[in-house]
Amino acid sequence: MKNAEQSLSALRPDISRMAKRIQAARGQIEADLVLKGGKVVHLFSGNIQEIDIAVYDNIIIGLGNTYKAKNEVKIRDKWVIPGLIDAHIHIESSMLIPSALAAALLVHGTTAIVSDPHEIANVMGLEGVRFMLENSRHIPFDTFFMAPSCVPATHLETAGAELNAADLAPLKNEPFVLGLAEMMNFPAILAGDPGVLEKIARFRESNLDGHCPMLSGRDLQAYLTTGISSDHEASTPEEALEKVRSGMMLMIREGTSAKNLESLLPVVNEQNVHRFCLVSDDLHAEDIQERGHLDFVIRKCISLGLDPLTAVRLATLNPASHFGLKNRGAIAPGYLADMVVLDDLEHFQVNSVYKNGQLVAREGKLIDFPSREKPASAKRSFRMAPFSKDSLKIRHRNGKARIIEWVPGQIITRMCLERVPSADGWVEGDTESDLLKLCVVERHRDTGTVGVGLIRGFGLKRGALISSVAHDSHNIIAVGVTDEEIALGVKTLGEMGGGLAAVRGDEVLARVPLEVAGLMSKKPIHELVKELKSVKEAARELGCRIPDPFMALSFLALPVIPELKVTDKGLVDVNKFEIVPLFEQG
Amino acid sequence: MKNAEQSLSALRPDISRMAKRIQAARGQIEADLVLKGGKVVHLFSGNIQEIDIAVYDNIIIGLGNTYKAKNEVKIRDKWVIPGLIDAHIHIESSMLIPSALAAALLVHGTTAIVSDPHEIANVMGLEGVRFMLENSRHIPFDTFFMAPSCVPATHLETAGAELNAADLAPLKNEPFVLGLAEMMNFPAILAGDPGVLEKIARFRESNLDGHCPMLSGRDLQAYLTTGISSDHEASTPEEALEKVRSGMMLMIREGTSAKNLESLLPVVNEQNVHRFCLVSDDLHAEDIQERGHLDFVIRKCISLGLDPLTAVRLATLNPASHFGLKNRGAIAPGYLADMVVLDDLEHFQVNSVYKNGQLVAREGKLIDFPSREKPASAKRSFRMAPFSKDSLKIRHRNGKARIIEWVPGQIITRMCLERVPSADGWVEGDTESDLLKLCVVERHRDTGTVGVGLIRGFGLKRGALISSVAHDSHNIIAVGVTDEEIALGVKTLGEMGGGLAAVRGDEVLARVPLEVAGLMSKKPIHELVKELKSVKEAARELGCRIPDPFMALSFLALPVIPELKVTDKGLVDVNKFEIVPLFEQG
Repeated sequence: MKNAEQSLSALRPDISRMAKRIQAARGQIEADLVLKGGKVVHLFSGNIQEIDIAVYDNIIIGLGNTYKAKNEVKIRDKWVIPGLIDAHIHIESSMLIPSALAAALLVHGTTAIVSDPHEIANVMGLEGVRFMLENSRHIPFDTFFMAPSCVPATHLETAGAELNAADLAPLKNEPFVLGLAEMMNFPAILAGDPGVLEKIARFRESNLDGHCPMLSGRDLQAYLTTGISSDHEASTPEEALEKVRSGMMLMIREGTSAKNLESLLPVVNEQNVHRFCLVSDDLHAEDIQERGHLDFVIRKCISLGLDPLTAVRLATLNPASHFGLKNRGAIAPGYLADMVVLDDLEHFQVNSVYKNGQLVAREGKLIDFPSREKPASAKRSFRMAPFSKDSLKIRHRNGKARIIEWVPGQIITRMCLERVPSADGWVEGDTESDLLKLCVVERHRDTGTVGVGLIRGFGLKRGALISSVAHDSHNIIAVGVTDEEIALGVKTLGEMGGGLAAVRGDEVLARVPLEVAGLMSKKPIHELVKELKSVKEAARELGCRIPDPFMALSFLALPVIPELKVTDKGLVDVNKFEIVPLFEQG
Repeated sequence: MKNAEQSLSALRPDISRMAKRIQAARGQIEADLVLKGGKVVHLFSGNIQEIDIAVYDNIIIGLGNTYKAKNEVKIRDKWVIPGLIDAHIHIESSMLIPSALAAALLVHGTTAIVSDPHEIANVMGLEGVRFMLENSRHIPFDTFFMAPSCVPATHLETAGAELNAADLAPLKNEPFVLGLAEMMNFPAILAGDPGVLEKIARFRESNLDGHCPMLSGRDLQAYLTTGISSDHEASTPEEALEKVRSGMMLMIREGTSAKNLESLLPVVNEQNVHRFCLVSDDLHAEDIQERGHLDFVIRKCISLGLDPLTAVRLATLNPASHFGLKNRGAIAPGYLADMVVLDDLEHFQVNSVYKNGQLVAREGKLIDFPSREKPASAKRSFRMAPFSKDSLKIRHRNGKARIIEWVPGQIITRMCLERVPSADGWVEGDTESDLLKLCVVERHRDTGTVGVGLIRGFGLKRGALISSVAHDSHNIIAVGVTDEEIALGVKTLGEMGGGLAAVRGDEVLARVPLEVAGLMSKKPIHELVKELKSVKEAARELGCRIPDPFMALSFLALPVIPELKVTDKGLVDVNKFEIVPLFEQG
């Protein structure tokens, strides 16, 4: 009910559109499209029916074997399911702009996503959110948004923006905004923080997404008294069952890093099947290209023993119901003609995809997808003071230094204390003992703040790796053998307007420009993936053995994950939740 | 999202209320109420758990066995389910005003209804709807409304009001209005009538209820292209299955006249269980008092073999989900503390009822229910010209007369043609052949129009029965042996401001004042039922053998149900959909 009172004249086009659809449904005028002879998956009744599907305008007008159309497509022996809906995804994690991600997902049968523009909001605030809204329009794909609830994530780093409840409120009126995004700051809720509760109060009539790993018992229930109604962080069956019983829509996450499907799928049964969705949360471009999106997750569900109709329901009707998307998630009259034709239901091979009644993808190829390269105001997201390698210098002191120890496959780090080498009274890295400088350079507000630490585990023998993707504030993060190489990398990123780079000596070995907020490329997925492969390959040449070194880098500035991190404000002891010096006192 | 932007100061009370609930959920402050040791029916997970339920403010804050409260109620060996929700009911059919119906339903475990004020809207238009909205507030019961979509029902009678799309639009902003009520005029939709489609266009973002008996195939699908999403008229399993498959929420109706439960329940299964609700549609006060409301229907479901948890779901979580009532329909943290304690789940005996955390009924008795007798502007609904018995006179003519033949147990009538007696050139009734005068007297606009016909099947040997409840326009309808007795009845109703009466000679044998719009009594249910019994008893004394003669009367002016009816405009041949004279031409 977002619309104010409308005049009759404003409604006339809708009314005549409705009248035409009715005529088409009754067979009085020809349909636009008929899919003939396919096996239709009925999610409301839980069965499969061989029947034609007629489409007029952008909706399904009827199922039946007497409809005629200019465009009749024979799909005998194929299956038809509704377009897939990802109920929780961060677009920025793909490093694709919304329109490019849409293009990448469509070929996998996804026709709508619900996204949280948390990353770009941390860089560019509402301007960033509005870019996402704008860039995702006028394409055959529906990108819904949740208003980012936790910007900035903490005050231990310099973010590009701060969004309080009043800032977020206007987003409620955006037609593609469905509510308030994952409320990660559950400690603030439990503490009754008025600023955080105000955000909920302002969005309480819409959808309130949750995020509360391991929260249980009274604290979980306290969190739920606010009206928050979903979670995608459950990692054990017990956690999932408690959350479902307590009323949460449980979004089973299967993304690039976090994979919960195998663990959680066994708890889905006939009694609770209406309370689960499949989501990706964070999904890298390479994963999308190589394995797919929800189609991949559904294949995995089926291989784990889930009934295919149930798997489909978890990625269509359930997310649509959860978010109150009334005419989505099913093949039925009045529903949007968002349809996926499958070669085979059991193996879940996408044959073709229809969005709003138009064929948009066939056999993995897009058809007539409009080009949408207008990443407005991307440059302005970089407001970096001139960078000098001198800012990387740390005076050596007696005593032990706090060293970040990278933990393989984890986003937590360990803190270890040891004596470190010096040169002329300054702290130095040491490739022998795999000790490298790690720095974070502020890039939003021209503050010139730089935080420097030491890290073990990256394995670089020479050169430096630099990135402007660093959760959650996305300052520049760099790891390198020499200050000069780090400085060249930072300079290179400044020139590109953000991105990833690998440097050796005075040479830039590879780079991935992410000109949009320093987070997203303007390129389509196959070009981006090529660039990403080259920069990773360069990292390997420099000696790094981490499978995805730039992803690893991106979590080293995240001061809400233990144990020791670096932000532009300095080293953060996460357990103490405070900035600490490199050297222990005493 | 009905609220415009709110200032922080306006939100402060909500925020501090939220903070207190969080504290209570965490056990930092005492709860208001703890139900101890009951068996909680979990509808999200489909199981039963023995656990305490803690309530603070008006919501459930947590389940767990360590909560403390001033008010701790032991309910060991009892079950707890969410408050029942009737997804479709016409309040006026009970002849109780909303607050009195609420009181009557609460003791049966119902805590919310979704109602269509179609009847009062036909009498009093928006003023009537606003009376219903107002009278149902400030009591421990939630009455939601759908904006009446079909006022007037036809143009073959004089209604008290006409509500077009623009008239209805302001109702969207009422917080307890959930959408557009049952769209009965499906022929107009199929014909693409712009006025009807405009109503849908104005409400398309909210809920659109349907009503389409026997509609099937292309016509059903055409109807559904508009976004209409529910039906309560299905009467056969095939019809129900088609409607469910096509995306309708199927409301299984079990009311006073229409009873579809036995026929439809067999189609509910594990795959489609999320697509059914239980509703009453029209339910008389006597039925409520004697058998109950949804509690009765659930008992019947269970006796027909339905799993009790499923039966409960059909009357709680499913209707709540359908209408997007986010925090209703389950026992879970953050949900309204609308709870029913049952002595026994299988026999479904209501022990006590909590609304918004307050005990409102125990063992069939209300507790502290506020008195709400302020039926504003009721009188004004009667705008009747002075009535003279001369208006009942019909000049006798040669040829056969069209006679209405009442059909036992049906709301259809038959038309039969025969010669009728005359006296001094005027048509007369004849008790020997059970031929009585039936008339409808306009009572909304002072038009003085009176329609007169003849009916067979009422069996009155003397006297007259008179009612101001006559679907859908609710003019005065009367059947009687003499014009004098009919005239006395009409006069009596005019004086009462509407109601039911039985007259013999110059005596009023019994009466039921329905001062509110001529449809509803101000009295509580037990007093009304006593009056209803007395007027029916009087009808029996007059010779009438119809089990419920006033209900039978109420359908005799409904010109959308075949075959021959009377409105204030005259005799209606429903098959021709036109006014016809009493005597055949020629």
